[in-house]
Amino acid sequence: MELLTTIHQMQARAGELERQGRRIGLVPTMGYLHAGHASLLRQLRPDCDSLWVSLFVNPAQFGPREDLARYPRDLEHDLALCRAEGVDGVLAPTPEEVYLPDYAAWVTPGPVAERYCGAARPGHFRGVLSIVLRLFHWTRCRVAAFGAKDAQQLWLIRRMARDLDLELEIREGATVREPDGLALSSRNVYLSAAERVSALALQRALHEGCRLLEAGAAPDTALDFMRRVLVAEPGVELDYLHVADWATLDSLAGTPGRPEWAAGLVAPPAPGQELVVLTAARVGATRLIDNMRPRWGEPRPV
Amino acid sequence: MELLTTIHQMQARAGELERQGRRIGLVPTMGYLHAGHASLLRQLRPDCDSLWVSLFVNPAQFGPREDLARYPRDLEHDLALCRAEGVDGVLAPTPEEVYLPDYAAWVTPGPVAERYCGAARPGHFRGVLSIVLRLFHWTRCRVAAFGAKDAQQLWLIRRMARDLDLELEIREGATVREPDGLALSSRNVYLSAAERVSALALQRALHEGCRLLEAGAAPDTALDFMRRVLVAEPGVELDYLHVADWATLDSLAGTPGRPEWAAGLVAPPAPGQELVVLTAARVGATRLIDNMRPRWGEPRPV
Repeated sequence: MELLTTIHQMQARAGELERQGRRIGLVPTMGYLHAGHASLLRQLRPDCDSLWVSLFVNPAQFGPREDLARYPRDLEHDLALCRAEGVDGVLAPTPEEVYLPDYAAWVTPGPVAERYCGAARPGHFRGVLSIVLRLFHWTRCRVAAFGAKDAQQLWLIRRMARDLDLELEIREGATVREPDGLALSSRNVYLSAAERVSALALQRALHEGCRLLEAGAAPDTALDFMRRVLVAEPGVELDYLHVADWATLDSLAGTPGRPEWAAGLVAPPAPGQELVVLTAARVGATRLIDNMRPRWGEPRPV
Repeated sequence: MELLTTIHQMQARAGELERQGRRIGLVPTMGYLHAGHASLLRQLRPDCDSLWVSLFVNPAQFGPREDLARYPRDLEHDLALCRAEGVDGVLAPTPEEVYLPDYAAWVTPGPVAERYCGAARPGHFRGVLSIVLRLFHWTRCRVAAFGAKDAQQLWLIRRMARDLDLELEIREGATVREPDGLALSSRNVYLSAAERVSALALQRALHEGCRLLEAGAAPDTALDFMRRVLVAEPGVELDYLHVADWATLDSLAGTPGRPEWAAGLVAPPAPGQELVVLTAARVGATRLIDNMRPRWGEPRPV
């Protein structure tokens, strides 16, 4: 397995691979890899000739009071996981090379990036899209995989790929969960034992909300139910909770209720319409997100 | 010569050319081609295996009160010029294909785009950079040429190419002028005979300013002289006039004097330092721009 630490090395290597006719696949990550990343790698492995992982804790997607400095890092563990998954190459550039002091060109994602996580984290998705575009440029990947857990990120990356005419496929990997349902996240390491228990309320609320929506409940009804589950949980402080249309990320019901997030026509969902229930909450000092994607009025096959 | 009218045709053709090992060159234009464009084509011809021109009047770089609707167009003339210059292919997509109704991802160029032309045309350079990036994606060009007449545009495109790690060369073509010195522009067609004469003041002022700077005059002195030439010209209404450092586009002297455009340290230029004198003015209803690039204290060889 190759380990490259500069953009220039990566560009040169990607050019070689492309000239050899290899199809490059990429899983962009911030490192501290877990079974969710491994699942993305397994999904992508058969679909490319050269499988790459980027490890880069991207300063541009952290706000000034966020956890950039203490974000968990473990290069040796990450390399071992990549080796075990049959990765061909790892790119781990330095922030100094990635962001020159007068760096200025950003990809701005438009109004959908101002909602949900974007409301709490101004500039976050600008930072994400810009680094992802550059990773695509560096690696010349023809397929890239992102986790469904970061639903809004996945949606915005797909939209960027469409708008900027990137000739690559964006694959989605299902959220991987602990046996008790907690969505895997590098940030779970911050949780105390008690917080770890409280955090389960997120997936419990979403799961129940999905069941209601799949049974044909109104988005407001599902929202109300989910909110009550979360508010009842000590140690959980809700940031947002919404039922949205997955095609547009327009909110059908949610809290906080911001009119600019709302679908223009608050008609009931259509049978089979793909929705997303999404939430962010603080559990102690840790901000966690989770989401699920029910189809309205269409119970999931057991 | 090929004429392609959709993004998808272009992507497919560029992919073929690349697989054949051809080096693609691109001159992006808004059409209504003139000798300035022809000069870019001649410069690029020997440096690529497949020479392409894009013709696209990009709505996203026009303000709501600007001349989008009446911007001059002449496809037959443009195709004839391209044929005569040995162009291999022309891309002329439709605005409807380029901008879907929910288009949202833009490249924002940072603070340098707020100055000079960007101050008078909010969003202009965002529109320019976004379409140029997409043209690069569509055509997979490895070299592209832009006219020096649009100095700030050239500077910002180079910066975008650096910041987004585009693996291509940005070539610069010298400003082509009429025998009397007027810089060629598709917008010159708007000028009446009297305005055509007034418009000469722009290049006269810049030319004299350059001579002063090349003789080692202070930027303030050169600015003062140029301003007097322009103010004395009936029918010319100055928008901006600046002496700037070409490396940073920071202003060394100018009007309007905006502190956020100014170089941090207003030290005198260093001998040999590359400057740019740049101006925009209305001549009648037409907005014209021009610029020249003197080296401070270094007279041009005759």
